[in-house]
Amino acid sequence: MGENGNDAEQLDLLAEYLAVAVEAAESAGEVIRRGFYQTKNVEHKGLVDLVTETDKACEELIFNHLKQKYPEHKFIGEESSAEFGTAELTDNPTWMVDPLDGTTNFVHGFPFVCVSIGLTIGKVPTIGVVFNPIINELFTGIRGRGAFLNGTPIKASSQSELVKSLLATEVGTKRDKSTVDASTDRINSLLFKVRSLRMTGSCALNLCGVACGRLDLFYELGFGGPWDVAGGAVIVEEAGGLVFDPSGGDFDVMSRRVAATNCYLKDLFVAALREAE
Amino acid sequence: MGENGNDAEQLDLLAEYLAVAVEAAESAGEVIRRGFYQTKNVEHKGLVDLVTETDKACEELIFNHLKQKYPEHKFIGEESSAEFGTAELTDNPTWMVDPLDGTTNFVHGFPFVCVSIGLTIGKVPTIGVVFNPIINELFTGIRGRGAFLNGTPIKASSQSELVKSLLATEVGTKRDKSTVDASTDRINSLLFKVRSLRMTGSCALNLCGVACGRLDLFYELGFGGPWDVAGGAVIVEEAGGLVFDPSGGDFDVMSRRVAATNCYLKDLFVAALREAE
Repeated sequence: MGENGNDAEQLDLLAEYLAVAVEAAESAGEVIRRGFYQTKNVEHKGLVDLVTETDKACEELIFNHLKQKYPEHKFIGEESSAEFGTAELTDNPTWMVDPLDGTTNFVHGFPFVCVSIGLTIGKVPTIGVVFNPIINELFTGIRGRGAFLNGTPIKASSQSELVKSLLATEVGTKRDKSTVDASTDRINSLLFKVRSLRMTGSCALNLCGVACGRLDLFYELGFGGPWDVAGGAVIVEEAGGLVFDPSGGDFDVMSRRVAATNCYLKDLFVAALREAE
Repeated sequence: MGENGNDAEQLDLLAEYLAVAVEAAESAGEVIRRGFYQTKNVEHKGLVDLVTETDKACEELIFNHLKQKYPEHKFIGEESSAEFGTAELTDNPTWMVDPLDGTTNFVHGFPFVCVSIGLTIGKVPTIGVVFNPIINELFTGIRGRGAFLNGTPIKASSQSELVKSLLATEVGTKRDKSTVDASTDRINSLLFKVRSLRMTGSCALNLCGVACGRLDLFYELGFGGPWDVAGGAVIVEEAGGLVFDPSGGDFDVMSRRVAATNCYLKDLFVAALREAE
């Protein structure tokens, strides 16, 4: 079989990876949906257990599904890398899974929660699946083959002026003075340059917001790990957006630093982020 | 007819007011939904027109519907008080309508937009309807008769510790240095005391978030006007929550200042807001 044949095989393989990841995300989404509507009916101690159980159940469900299909693949997960995988990224196909992104939202019943699944091949994010089971939005992307919301192609916004742009960021979970001060100083500086600011509490859904043009700009520093961004990064890029380090350098999926824009705003946003330091 | 008969008549009248307001909100919601999915397909100039037209069409629709049923009632509206009503609150039944709360979200396709309708009687918020036509959530409340989301009773959260509470606020639209600095200083101070922060871009939906327990704390200063809060205030109080001035004083629907919590957190939140000044 010639080069074209190999390309076609590769495409079929990627389509299969995506289909398997979507199955896993939808199964986990069902568990999240059930838990989401229970949180109001359990005592505080029960709530902590419910979150832990939901997270654990979703992770096992997703990892078992993927491992059964692809026993030779590597895995990097949030909760139990020791159990399910490794923390070191290699060139091997590597699944990065956040079974429940937006845990605080889940606890409070705030409807921005999702399953986030990414696959890197040769360290490059190649497959992305982000599924919000509460408002039923499934974002998907395959490197080189476009990004979709519930099967419909999506594209990043066409906004080219910062002053008309909608920015998302998060305040994270660290509450030491230097982290919080840096965070609010940055927000203060950016507010003079953009139209407005949103905080949803889900890194993966913020990336998907940029991908479908609801948001124009997003950055976050110090989030949990590569599982928060590996899936969303593919989806943004396939929607015609850009994913990069907030310094303007190349995006490193392992760095716990991310910025994303449509294709027009990167340089302006990087300059604004620099002035905000 | 005795006192009980009058009470029953009054209750029937309030139920009718609510039903009429819901009809109006649902008609306007249909117009918002159509516009929401068009924003991606129009040029910038077309976009400004679309927002203006949608806002105007919804306002006319709601005011005409209410005025036809209740020609003797007063009206206070966002866009065209000169045309539809007055800016002065009296003891007369007075409808306060924001036909499209979350205009920036509407423009960007961010799904937190709503119709907000409130009715004051004797200056007291008495009927509240907040309808998000994109994710199909209808919040309703009648003073003394409970609050509902899509017909199901809702209640505010039972959280009693600030450190476990989810806070919402907004950065507003003013970008002068003293307003922005005050806003981010306040956020900085509060971040050391609460679990996390959300910004959705809709004042009315933030109030409803407190009402249904998704959010524990909300404050906003300097928003558009009474139409942003008149409906949501009824819904919060009927869900067992509290609505008050951020200083801790009584809520004044005309003041463009609002804070809301569940029934446990008011004093702690007021103290935290004072320390944040």
